[in-house]
Amino acid sequence: MDRPRVILDTQGGDRGPAEIIVGGIKAADAFDAEVILAGDQSTIEGEMSRRAKRRFTILHAPEIVTMEDIPTEAVRRKKESSLIKGIEYIRQGLANAFVSPANTGAVMAASLLNLGRIRGIDRPGIAAVIPTVRGRNVLIIDVGANVDCDAENLKEFAIMGTVYAQEILGIEEPKVGLLNIGSERRKGNELALKTFFLLEHLGNFSGNVEGHQVLEGQVDVVVCDGFAGNVLLKSYEGGAAATVEFLQKAIAKDFFARLGAFILLPALRNFKRSISAARYGGAPLLGVKGVVIIAHGNSDAEAIKNAIRVAVESVRHDLVGKIERGLAEHLPRSAAKEVTT
Amino acid sequence: MDRPRVILDTQGGDRGPAEIIVGGIKAADAFDAEVILAGDQSTIEGEMSRRAKRRFTILHAPEIVTMEDIPTEAVRRKKESSLIKGIEYIRQGLANAFVSPANTGAVMAASLLNLGRIRGIDRPGIAAVIPTVRGRNVLIIDVGANVDCDAENLKEFAIMGTVYAQEILGIEEPKVGLLNIGSERRKGNELALKTFFLLEHLGNFSGNVEGHQVLEGQVDVVVCDGFAGNVLLKSYEGGAAATVEFLQKAIAKDFFARLGAFILLPALRNFKRSISAARYGGAPLLGVKGVVIIAHGNSDAEAIKNAIRVAVESVRHDLVGKIERGLAEHLPRSAAKEVTT
Repeated sequence: MDRPRVILDTQGGDRGPAEIIVGGIKAADAFDAEVILAGDQSTIEGEMSRRAKRRFTILHAPEIVTMEDIPTEAVRRKKESSLIKGIEYIRQGLANAFVSPANTGAVMAASLLNLGRIRGIDRPGIAAVIPTVRGRNVLIIDVGANVDCDAENLKEFAIMGTVYAQEILGIEEPKVGLLNIGSERRKGNELALKTFFLLEHLGNFSGNVEGHQVLEGQVDVVVCDGFAGNVLLKSYEGGAAATVEFLQKAIAKDFFARLGAFILLPALRNFKRSISAARYGGAPLLGVKGVVIIAHGNSDAEAIKNAIRVAVESVRHDLVGKIERGLAEHLPRSAAKEVTT
Repeated sequence: MDRPRVILDTQGGDRGPAEIIVGGIKAADAFDAEVILAGDQSTIEGEMSRRAKRRFTILHAPEIVTMEDIPTEAVRRKKESSLIKGIEYIRQGLANAFVSPANTGAVMAASLLNLGRIRGIDRPGIAAVIPTVRGRNVLIIDVGANVDCDAENLKEFAIMGTVYAQEILGIEEPKVGLLNIGSERRKGNELALKTFFLLEHLGNFSGNVEGHQVLEGQVDVVVCDGFAGNVLLKSYEGGAAATVEFLQKAIAKDFFARLGAFILLPALRNFKRSISAARYGGAPLLGVKGVVIIAHGNSDAEAIKNAIRVAVESVRHDLVGKIERGLAEHLPRSAAKEVTT
């Protein structure tokens, strides 16, 4: 396979283009991939002349999609933005993956309109990968792309999540759990009750999983609507951050504690960061016909580098093709369901 | 005021009646309240003869509502259960508060059917109180009573939560936040968008709050549907537990870390426990005509004691009356809304 060509959207991040460009340079040094920088040419050239030892391809795109832009309007109007031009490159096959820290809704809208959905997918979902206490990772889908979902959407998330866990996380037989508020099958809201019924037909469904259990690592893929998934992900981050902060306060009061903390705090900060990394390090948008990785708006260079790593791995593993084939296995049954409901 | 009379449901908890009875004895020793023990008379007498120095009133109720019982069926059929007989005592004014670690759905159903709702409340909600990093508490409502809600339900939660924060948490001007997935007003699912609009008419609404922000303590009351609230609460618990577990592993590898940890771990465990306490220590069911406190099924004696403390304070502060008056202030507007929607 040729080296994957990854388009990095240098605009729309909270920290400005310089930070993102540095992330792109780091990634190009670390991975066997070509990084194409999309954004304002003179801004990028200015940064590159100071930082990079080698040449990068630049995709000139002067317009910026901001966090305040309404997604569908931005997609329609800002044709000269790095977002629209970058996605268009992917569509034309001129590059293999798109990484962006811009407005999530706009990245979603541009991907849906210009790349389209994989056959069998009604709604693409954003997947986040976080570490569990067992050491292995858990994938949560959806964490914010679709705030209102139906059971079929969640079933599609389950299939896409399974393929991603197999291909990218290297888990041979991933177990799928349904985010719910109790372990019994009759627990939950209307969506959860309906989804439980659909997921039972998948071979790798292992039942409900509650908010406090996801980090325990009993399942590899957790499916939920984008609202609940977003709450879940941010709450872990909040719970971990609060614990670290609480610890720091306890330490400040006690000399002996300070001594131990001197050694412990770096480890704790690492853990807190790895929980946050799911939000900051690049989450794949699964279900569109192309590799699209969403980085957090506040990403630093390290987070951007990490997002590009996810993009490179997704291209190398032919993620889109694998999802297509994974869905094909389940499509006949899924199509039959659609007729009966 | 007379000493509050609190009925403690000794049945239906995961740990069996003995643990709950010990909690009741501890509470009677600690608070100026009468604790009435509801359950199987001979079981209770057996425990009491070994543990208590003074006499307790027993409400004999041989039937047990289990976690597996379907709530509405349990309420209809198990007339001789401590749950049904206890709630009936409250309804008749023979006691002031009911504390139960039994099946939450059944406690809800029994309270709704036998006590009824406060005028202006469509759906009672379960409130959980957890500590923030700022030291003050935050109340989250609903954390599991209503898994599917509409915007009017959430507005009622906001009003009841405000009254509880004022009366029981002692916060003079509580700020209300809406659990959402972004700070902007156009973010969120259909429910969140509609609720934002309704809450704007309350004087103390301060906008959206995200999962990672709730523990930061910027708002005092967080409103959400019971599904999202349950996910939020359990995720904090999971995030804190994972952080502590991670720390313990890091400690096991390093001698110096063990030294500091010797002092730090108790503080960390306390924090983890205080996060869990919201689930384990007694959550008020707000909106029914009576003081009903739901303890976690797995409550130990300390958690039961804590739940009784919440019950006693709620009675002393005339919580039900205060909620009625709080709602009355908002009822005309609320009623007008109901007509127009």
